[in-house]
Amino acid sequence: MEQKKQDTASALKDIISHAKEYGFVFPSSEIYDGLQAVYDYGQNGVELKNNLKNVWYKAMTMLNDNVVGLDASIFMHPLTWKASGHVDSFNDPMIDNKDSKKRYRADTLLEERAAALEDEGKADEAKALMQAMAKGLDAGDLEAVRQLIIDQNIKCPVSGTANWTEVRQFNLMFSTQVGAVSEDASLIYLRPETAQGIFVNFLNVQKTGRMKVPFGIAQIGKAFRNEIVARNFIFRMREFEQMEMQFFVRPGTEMEWYNKWKETRMKFHQAIGLPADSLKFHDHDKLAHYANAAVDIEYKFPFGFKEMEGIHSRTDFDLKAHQDLSKKKQQYFDPEINQNYIPYVVETSVGADRLFLAILCNAYTEETTGEGESLKQRVYLNIHPALAPTKVAVLPLVKKDGLAEKAQEITNQLKFAFNTTYDDGGAIGKRYTRQDLIGTPYCVVVDYQTMEDQTVTVRDRNTMSQERISIADLKEKLGHAVSMERIFEKLV
Amino acid sequence: MEQKKQDTASALKDIISHAKEYGFVFPSSEIYDGLQAVYDYGQNGVELKNNLKNVWYKAMTMLNDNVVGLDASIFMHPLTWKASGHVDSFNDPMIDNKDSKKRYRADTLLEERAAALEDEGKADEAKALMQAMAKGLDAGDLEAVRQLIIDQNIKCPVSGTANWTEVRQFNLMFSTQVGAVSEDASLIYLRPETAQGIFVNFLNVQKTGRMKVPFGIAQIGKAFRNEIVARNFIFRMREFEQMEMQFFVRPGTEMEWYNKWKETRMKFHQAIGLPADSLKFHDHDKLAHYANAAVDIEYKFPFGFKEMEGIHSRTDFDLKAHQDLSKKKQQYFDPEINQNYIPYVVETSVGADRLFLAILCNAYTEETTGEGESLKQRVYLNIHPALAPTKVAVLPLVKKDGLAEKAQEITNQLKFAFNTTYDDGGAIGKRYTRQDLIGTPYCVVVDYQTMEDQTVTVRDRNTMSQERISIADLKEKLGHAVSMERIFEKLV
Repeated sequence: MEQKKQDTASALKDIISHAKEYGFVFPSSEIYDGLQAVYDYGQNGVELKNNLKNVWYKAMTMLNDNVVGLDASIFMHPLTWKASGHVDSFNDPMIDNKDSKKRYRADTLLEERAAALEDEGKADEAKALMQAMAKGLDAGDLEAVRQLIIDQNIKCPVSGTANWTEVRQFNLMFSTQVGAVSEDASLIYLRPETAQGIFVNFLNVQKTGRMKVPFGIAQIGKAFRNEIVARNFIFRMREFEQMEMQFFVRPGTEMEWYNKWKETRMKFHQAIGLPADSLKFHDHDKLAHYANAAVDIEYKFPFGFKEMEGIHSRTDFDLKAHQDLSKKKQQYFDPEINQNYIPYVVETSVGADRLFLAILCNAYTEETTGEGESLKQRVYLNIHPALAPTKVAVLPLVKKDGLAEKAQEITNQLKFAFNTTYDDGGAIGKRYTRQDLIGTPYCVVVDYQTMEDQTVTVRDRNTMSQERISIADLKEKLGHAVSMERIFEKLV
Repeated sequence: MEQKKQDTASALKDIISHAKEYGFVFPSSEIYDGLQAVYDYGQNGVELKNNLKNVWYKAMTMLNDNVVGLDASIFMHPLTWKASGHVDSFNDPMIDNKDSKKRYRADTLLEERAAALEDEGKADEAKALMQAMAKGLDAGDLEAVRQLIIDQNIKCPVSGTANWTEVRQFNLMFSTQVGAVSEDASLIYLRPETAQGIFVNFLNVQKTGRMKVPFGIAQIGKAFRNEIVARNFIFRMREFEQMEMQFFVRPGTEMEWYNKWKETRMKFHQAIGLPADSLKFHDHDKLAHYANAAVDIEYKFPFGFKEMEGIHSRTDFDLKAHQDLSKKKQQYFDPEINQNYIPYVVETSVGADRLFLAILCNAYTEETTGEGESLKQRVYLNIHPALAPTKVAVLPLVKKDGLAEKAQEITNQLKFAFNTTYDDGGAIGKRYTRQDLIGTPYCVVVDYQTMEDQTVTVRDRNTMSQERISIADLKEKLGHAVSMERIFEKLV
């Protein structure tokens, strides 16, 4: 048995087309030719995504006594984004070509130029260019950034000219007007991250939940960024979903918790089925102004190792900023040391869509068995049973002689407990294939022996091996196999 | 034992304050004095809301073989809203007072006037006014609507004058600009309903899921409306969550399905714990242009019977409109009758926030037991065990003699399977109260007898009665009691 795993960009194409063909991910508003960088989750995608959200949320809140949930709204008071720094500095530097009227990210143009230099063997020159760009951006010297583009003689791929405007900052937040009473109408933003919803509710949760530091607040929700260059399928979208947890700690203890969460989160990704050698830590070369430590967990996507989750020690930056702007004390009285302080925060932030994509990329398996005339090829999705969209398919070998009714009866027994589907359409091999393609871990087959001894065969998706089991044991055995408890056990 | 249930508006105040004090619902961005008509779900609220979403979603997709899920994005192609009619007619008629500069809904001003007339015993005059208004609005004759306001001598409550502008239509959709490339930037809307995400994906789901009409697509998601008058806590918000199911049927069979879903949905609300006498059907007096039958399920909120769910027979209005505008055939080939057609649609649409509010209103119970010196009062939330935020609290009678460790051990045994909390803070009665206030159905108490015979007492939230159970049986017995299967069993 040979399994082929492609690591190339062409593998991404296979996955995108599989995702569409089998109801995992559709381009949004496809009948209107789609909306760039926005996608919809289909009937199988929604199940996988919900399972991923569930397992994350439960791992956070059920397995940790000191982590609770929250569901803050997407709309927030605009001052939130003033305090967080997003109004003033959540920008990308943009430049327009005067001839083609096309707009580009100035940093992307320079990065592409540096990559080209490297390909030409001029690694030192490439490095110097990147350093000069970083210096210009850090200093807010956009004229210096523009000069680099001129000096490098970078041309617009459309017009072919180097006739550039100045570089301007472009804010990535979407805004809208709320309120109808004319003088009350005000500009609000679609949240660019869910974290601030947790920060502004820190004291509400701490007080009403009688939480003692250290404790965490976990939240899943949509966020929105007007990305200039959205790409790589659902990896970078304009509308996306975050799973974030802010862990509030006593100042001075943050590195201990940072290291603990770093380890916990890596364990999580392995527990849900991502192989250790497809995952790695990537320490940030340069820390954001609010962080004193930051690391990414990267997954080996077909387009390379890329960020899937970030773990950040954010100090007291956010709570302090909200305290300063709102004039509401964001302090905690710590009875153990008899002191008031603004807690420090360790954040774990994972992209739900990126995790979905990682699971899909990892699951997509092309397999060849046998050789010569008995050579067979199949594609299946090797998704962890607890995360698979459908857990069990019940298939009557034939429709006649009461087998269909028996299979339907079994379906009804199981469907209250876990996602169970019934399928009697076509040859049995074709029905196995159908389930393999959407990652169903178990197929239960009702055959003539079933009618005699009340047993069925259970086929395993990955090994294709079959086992005879009594109908009376099905619910418990399969229930155990597809339960999220299997994942949780690896996390304690 | 006497239970008090208030039906008045003052009851809503109690519920709002309970919701805030016990971590169910917080005003959004409260440290910045809130954002009107937007709320956040706290650590207990998010659990209850997730449970409600889960039970709805599972009842739809797991209990019906022919209903599958979907998770379409909030951003959609703007033509979607042209086809649906929202761009042209999702409006409220507004009027400004020139002196106060305040803006009002013209229809609300007239409705309030009609209510006042009724209070004065002028029912006929009130009825005539409402009919004249309906006629004006239907004909799009906004000048006639304005004239009614002038004729009735309605004055602005702020300026006290009748110095009104003309009446204008105000669209309730929020809009934003997407895209950074200047010539590509385009106006898009935040979806005002989730239904259209289902319609534009109808063929994608039907084909990739090999669905046969009749079948349904169920979806949970946020929707946004720039409501002029948002009120009644989380009943009418600008950001809210819908749970919608579109059921596609053969034309001519829609009334049969409409009646079936009407009955199914009413059964659902009762199965999750809402009493039959707090629920009623309300047939629409006037049908929307796309509907040939429509009914609301109303719940008896403290502010009266109000819509919680709508069941609508939408004909082929939506699919046809999308077919016309997109030029993409939205047809289904029905092998049973060998015909192509655009399916008719029966929709069930429930507000997740409204259902949450109904559950909370119904659950809030003030109880008096005993009399004289032994008179005791308590407040508890009578939430269905499967929906309660915390299922079980494990409480050591005292912290010493190994009882705390034993209780912690039991917590660890249960917490993989359902939400279990450990609490050793304060007198046992105080800890019961704490759990009553957030609706925890079971308290497990570890006492000295536990250390001898491995049994614990289990206290029931509603009856306050206690039962001794072996630790070995806890997981199964409590697991059974808090399982959603208890709800599903009532639905088949």
